[in-house]
Amino acid sequence: MRTLFKVERISEDCKARAGTLYLNGIEVPTPVFMPVGTYGTVKAMTPNMLSELGYKLILGNTYHLYLRPGLEIIQKFEGLHKFINWGNGILTDSGGYQVFSLESFRRLSEDGVEFRSHIDGSVHFFTPEKVVQAQRIFGSDIMMVLDDCVEYPADYSRVRESVDRTLAWAKRSLSEFNSTQPLWKREQFIFGIIQGGTYPDLRKMSLDEMLTLDFDGFAIGGLSVGEEEELMYRITDICTEKLPLEKPRYLMGVGTPQNILQAIELGIDMFDCVLPTRNGRNGQIFTTRGKINIRNSKFKDSTEAIDPGLNNEISQNFTLGYLRHLFVAEEILGSILATYQNLAFYKWLVDTAREKILLGSFRQWKNKIDYF
Amino acid sequence: MRTLFKVERISEDCKARAGTLYLNGIEVPTPVFMPVGTYGTVKAMTPNMLSELGYKLILGNTYHLYLRPGLEIIQKFEGLHKFINWGNGILTDSGGYQVFSLESFRRLSEDGVEFRSHIDGSVHFFTPEKVVQAQRIFGSDIMMVLDDCVEYPADYSRVRESVDRTLAWAKRSLSEFNSTQPLWKREQFIFGIIQGGTYPDLRKMSLDEMLTLDFDGFAIGGLSVGEEEELMYRITDICTEKLPLEKPRYLMGVGTPQNILQAIELGIDMFDCVLPTRNGRNGQIFTTRGKINIRNSKFKDSTEAIDPGLNNEISQNFTLGYLRHLFVAEEILGSILATYQNLAFYKWLVDTAREKILLGSFRQWKNKIDYF
Repeated sequence: MRTLFKVERISEDCKARAGTLYLNGIEVPTPVFMPVGTYGTVKAMTPNMLSELGYKLILGNTYHLYLRPGLEIIQKFEGLHKFINWGNGILTDSGGYQVFSLESFRRLSEDGVEFRSHIDGSVHFFTPEKVVQAQRIFGSDIMMVLDDCVEYPADYSRVRESVDRTLAWAKRSLSEFNSTQPLWKREQFIFGIIQGGTYPDLRKMSLDEMLTLDFDGFAIGGLSVGEEEELMYRITDICTEKLPLEKPRYLMGVGTPQNILQAIELGIDMFDCVLPTRNGRNGQIFTTRGKINIRNSKFKDSTEAIDPGLNNEISQNFTLGYLRHLFVAEEILGSILATYQNLAFYKWLVDTAREKILLGSFRQWKNKIDYF
Repeated sequence: MRTLFKVERISEDCKARAGTLYLNGIEVPTPVFMPVGTYGTVKAMTPNMLSELGYKLILGNTYHLYLRPGLEIIQKFEGLHKFINWGNGILTDSGGYQVFSLESFRRLSEDGVEFRSHIDGSVHFFTPEKVVQAQRIFGSDIMMVLDDCVEYPADYSRVRESVDRTLAWAKRSLSEFNSTQPLWKREQFIFGIIQGGTYPDLRKMSLDEMLTLDFDGFAIGGLSVGEEEELMYRITDICTEKLPLEKPRYLMGVGTPQNILQAIELGIDMFDCVLPTRNGRNGQIFTTRGKINIRNSKFKDSTEAIDPGLNNEISQNFTLGYLRHLFVAEEILGSILATYQNLAFYKWLVDTAREKILLGSFRQWKNKIDYF
């Protein structure tokens, strides 16, 4: 019997939910934030560090892993978990977003999408079936369907086309998924993706059609691509109104701490974003006392801990002054500590949200804090 | 009573020794290799990783730390240990080697050396006294005297001059050391440095004069700067013949695994070198099965562990194929894992040498292995 998700509590005063994802013996409490591990590594982190922080589910990018190291090598290693030495859960995206973001070259057809590698210019072709097959080789605990992503802003007809194509591809993906088996003795789940841009009627159309398909969960794609935050929340709200209560909901590529809290209130369970890792490497540090730029000279002689509000050795034992020094001297340890701190903060954020949801005081808590 | 060092065993068939350094409650078995932490961080390592590997003594560079973050900040933090969050031992060099390596600008006088910062071009002046004062501020467990380093090859008269100046500066350093106290409740020790280039008679002159001064230990400087390895061994041999048995001997900036074993045989106790860390970041991996360049495509689908011969999680659980992928994708984790492996290998090398010395079988073991 496939059980991916159980909802434990739904708030009374908003749509916020607490639940658990069950992935091959791994229990992942929700709301969950997934650190992004593009090439099979969450940049600047060891797998042990992620485990120390309590992360049990990370994201890998199909587009990037398909190009480097390539499917053949991951097959030889019997899947991504063994390749990267990670015993916990992995969700892989479909590559849709990456391929459609390629400025250099892509050609879209009903069958799939042709694109040129950003690494060596070689030409490749993704079909919905091929993307499912790739994720069978990865052995991802959760795989995503190939979708037709649109830029923002996009005109109505282009978004309408993407809704139709995403639906057609979702059907083919599910059919490929149902006619194949996992390769590496890991149970695999598959999520559909809702498109429709910022047009409420197209979102509803995408939802109505996608919900007729028996996916294990649903993602909202095509948001956080440049639209106003209020519009992102409005569209998210429209989606979570229709999404089935019993299945997990994943808002792709979101976001800032504030975005995440807002989306949790709207009923989202799962998030991923490069923000804590990428911005960390650039010296932007998220802390329970607010966001700081560690390069600022005001920190040069600060003997304060990076974040005494977080319960881990790195946030508590390293100082802001030392972290600044590491950034000024361009030391790798600066990236390591900043990434660790930011991921510790994001973990704390979703864990605290979950705790408050379970206590029935999520909105009350959320409305009191204003980090960013 | 100041006790820095005890010799536990001297080999019968060579000069190899096993001993222990006692630094503020920290016991450091010798022979010891000290990872280089130029700017107050061993590049790509967290302090915890160094501790996991069993390292209890690291090196910091006075020249670099003096420029960045500067003495004022380290003073504010009450020393280098607190600044970098490292509870174990620190040896700091005197900056002599770095200043004399500056191509851009330096001016030598009897009083000291004027130099231009490689960072911002600002002009600074080091005297033997100032360098001791800097190391009082660092709170280094072991400090080194400022020496006059010469390039290789150098003519006799220049080397002779450096021997004289290094001696004069050593006297001033010791006088400054003896007339000041530690600032941060850490006992501090001070080492003299033997110069003399590759001229045996100048080395002997430097030794004869330096040994009249009551240093806690002695370093051999000015080797591993481009001379033939056999010449380096010959000069080291000359030095260890004269150095007192009861004090620790430190061969600065050495070296390859083979250099280290050879120098241990000649009676050296302490080593430092950027090789395992710098070369690690460039993809050269030292293993108990030999040295490899991990970028080599022959490793691309290797499911072998990085080094099953080393007893730590990283060497045993990550594969050569994954490590290669990380280097190809230019991921920070590649630098982390490679540095970790190389430092694990260097630790294993000196620890095994010590074990064999204590068993009386060091030469026998050394002559059987030929890693590099």
